[in-house]
Amino acid sequence: MKIIIVGASGTMGSFLSKAFEKEHEIVRADRHGMDMQVDITSPESIENMYKATGAFDALICTAGPTYVGPWKSLTGKEFRQGVEGKMMGQINLVLIGQHYIKPRGSFTLITGALTHEPQRNFANASAANGAVEGFVRAAAIELENGVRINAVSPTVIENSPQYFPFFPGEIPTTMRQLEYGFRKSAFGAGTGQVIKTH
Amino acid sequence: MKIIIVGASGTMGSFLSKAFEKEHEIVRADRHGMDMQVDITSPESIENMYKATGAFDALICTAGPTYVGPWKSLTGKEFRQGVEGKMMGQINLVLIGQHYIKPRGSFTLITGALTHEPQRNFANASAANGAVEGFVRAAAIELENGVRINAVSPTVIENSPQYFPFFPGEIPTTMRQLEYGFRKSAFGAGTGQVIKTH
Repeated sequence: MKIIIVGASGTMGSFLSKAFEKEHEIVRADRHGMDMQVDITSPESIENMYKATGAFDALICTAGPTYVGPWKSLTGKEFRQGVEGKMMGQINLVLIGQHYIKPRGSFTLITGALTHEPQRNFANASAANGAVEGFVRAAAIELENGVRINAVSPTVIENSPQYFPFFPGEIPTTMRQLEYGFRKSAFGAGTGQVIKTH
Repeated sequence: MKIIIVGASGTMGSFLSKAFEKEHEIVRADRHGMDMQVDITSPESIENMYKATGAFDALICTAGPTYVGPWKSLTGKEFRQGVEGKMMGQINLVLIGQHYIKPRGSFTLITGALTHEPQRNFANASAANGAVEGFVRAAAIELENGVRINAVSPTVIENSPQYFPFFPGEIPTTMRQLEYGFRKSAFGAGTGQVIKTH
């Protein structure tokens, strides 16, 4: 399979790239340019990525910028980080990518436990996650040619210990659990699912 | 109680205004100006509404514009209708309104069954609803002074039969069920809840 991984230089993306590269052709994409440069906040940049990549079997997105910070400093302006990043960035990857993906291909987006289990400082991520999950369920009944779409929803990630203090008592998602979530989405048959890795 | 109803000229808002006006002081707000003019896609307009209204006990929003139309015509551009309207419009009503609401006041936003039960043509609403529901859960743990926040989630509305063909087999939410949902949110003790009227 030809798999595009957006956010390939990040904690999750680099792990998944290594996990899948033995069996699949991986196109690593990130903001700064690995195999491919893409700024998911720009529809033009997304279109250019797909034009350069050509037809593909699976897109995995692990990139989801949001605003993290005290509620008191959260206004509509800060909120835009998650709206343009984790939400519309990922939604545009699908709305545009559907014209390039192969029949029976799949999209796998990233959300997180914050959708239903909020933590202080993360209201922007809770909203962006909720939007992406609602979109995934709706897109699943609209996409044609057998194209599937799912979201993977982890808790705080094992390899991101800097976030542990923000998630008291939350059992971290191991990198292996995360990998299995993406495997289930990309290589399984389900669609419209939010795959919890916790 | 002093209750601001945003979307007061709409199907839901006008019903709720009549239902609550015997017991409460109702401030009717909508785009065209009833007691108050407000364009929820504009943070400035929201701020002006609150400045003019002054301190209040409850805000109810029944206004939630989204893009409704064929998937094939849905691009990031059309998607903005729900992002700026039902999503950021309602989120900004809270982020700004928290500075005007009385202690122990409440916000009640509108979402809908589409969050979890998608229908063709409504992907934009599914995403906007999901965002608002995620935000409601997160805001509930952040708001101070005992201020509460909930969402009411109806199916297709009894008094909006023009939408019935889009919701095959969906049992409509009666106006009375809808009223009870908003009563539960505004006059009950719960917070961070998505109150299903179905």
